[in-house]
Amino acid sequence: MTSEGLGRVEDDAVAVLDTPYADAGALIEATGSLDALASAKVVRRTPLDETELLAPVPRPRALWGIGLNYHSKAKRAGRSVPTEPVLYLASPSSVSGPGDEVRLPAEQTAEMDYEAEIAVVIGRTLDRADEADAWPAVAAVTAANDMTCRDVMKRTGWPVLAKSFPGFTPLGASLLSRDRVPGPDAIGVRSWVRGEARQDSTSADMIFSIPELLARISRYAVLRPGDVVLTGTPAGTGQDRGDFLRPGDTVRVEIDGVLPLTTRVRA
Amino acid sequence: MTSEGLGRVEDDAVAVLDTPYADAGALIEATGSLDALASAKVVRRTPLDETELLAPVPRPRALWGIGLNYHSKAKRAGRSVPTEPVLYLASPSSVSGPGDEVRLPAEQTAEMDYEAEIAVVIGRTLDRADEADAWPAVAAVTAANDMTCRDVMKRTGWPVLAKSFPGFTPLGASLLSRDRVPGPDAIGVRSWVRGEARQDSTSADMIFSIPELLARISRYAVLRPGDVVLTGTPAGTGQDRGDFLRPGDTVRVEIDGVLPLTTRVRA
Repeated sequence: MTSEGLGRVEDDAVAVLDTPYADAGALIEATGSLDALASAKVVRRTPLDETELLAPVPRPRALWGIGLNYHSKAKRAGRSVPTEPVLYLASPSSVSGPGDEVRLPAEQTAEMDYEAEIAVVIGRTLDRADEADAWPAVAAVTAANDMTCRDVMKRTGWPVLAKSFPGFTPLGASLLSRDRVPGPDAIGVRSWVRGEARQDSTSADMIFSIPELLARISRYAVLRPGDVVLTGTPAGTGQDRGDFLRPGDTVRVEIDGVLPLTTRVRA
Repeated sequence: MTSEGLGRVEDDAVAVLDTPYADAGALIEATGSLDALASAKVVRRTPLDETELLAPVPRPRALWGIGLNYHSKAKRAGRSVPTEPVLYLASPSSVSGPGDEVRLPAEQTAEMDYEAEIAVVIGRTLDRADEADAWPAVAAVTAANDMTCRDVMKRTGWPVLAKSFPGFTPLGASLLSRDRVPGPDAIGVRSWVRGEARQDSTSADMIFSIPELLARISRYAVLRPGDVVLTGTPAGTGQDRGDFLRPGDTVRVEIDGVLPLTTRVRA
């Protein structure tokens, strides 16, 4: 998603497309996939590094997340592997875009943290779905930074409160359609803070695989086209290092095949 | 909201209006209030009892709720009055409309319950708002039935899972604009099950008033136009009586000044 409309990444350029959709989320809500972009007319091409990228799904209806979901994170935290996933919703008003600044809510927290995650965008309705039907219902994947105030989580016990602050869910910088993803268990996820590598894992280390996670959510709530599911974070967060975010910090999250997602923390 | 478009209730008739909005939620997202309806052209008038009413806000982005929030409920349940509200999000895919049937998710629950609630629809953005600014930011109120599987709540500990099943958040049957509400502490709320009165209270009995509740949510997450906040339920739920919902039951919820909201439970 660019400031000039929906676009397609072509190596070092972005082809800005002629579509009736406000953003990729609206396209997926309406059509279930990114397929319509393949045949959309190219309005113009702009160099990638001169293109302003926006959140591809800026206003999802439901923004699901999961607690502890990587073996590496459980091991690092000295916690046992959960037998049931902790599922939560965060407020869609927490979504921000690539390159955005996010305010450190100092009145609430001294422990603002990053979490590099694979985000999946739902393309087809899932209602009490089998695992086998879950992955084909995904429209695309993107990168997410599931920012969390650890002390708010400890104080309140509620992920929804620790993760819904304005801007706390950067998404992007591009969408990768499902047909271009090698598979749900083969997606790399990495993060850097202040230029230093912090997280480096793949979805193969997940406790609950992406299809299992979607099937489990769908036992409790219908997932609809355009909904976004964050799938957990590997070891290496600030919590694991006792090193939380400060104003001026830049966090970069990368998911295989997706443009890097950077976020700057401000006071 | 009617099956023919947005309408205005006029005694025993509904004036169907010529507007560009898909539903009242879309109108409030775009304009912050229902004011535009006052000057909208009337397309036709239909008798109220022959008009098919739909959920006025069928697809909110954020659907907030609150745990224990009436003194009567705390007393009945033998629980102490909370000093901090339990705030949660439910999935927007749980919203249903007046007269809809809702499936009892028998594979998950033996304790499906009703909760008559005052729902407020946000008209203006609230971000770390003062209580004094909260009520003027409300666009309208409506009735909600915040249906809950008590055993899912006990088993998982998560309101989001106990309250997000398909259809579990009936909303409607009409919106009452804020300027027609006597005040946030003077709204009556009642329910009937199988024709028998079950809940009868007013917002004066709330532990956290509506403005206090909105201000508190806005410390953690931005509330945006079109977001819906459910404000808790008084004593008299099925949980209080050990009498849960069964297929064939009809629940009616009434909020002062709002058309009755009925929901039928099916297997």
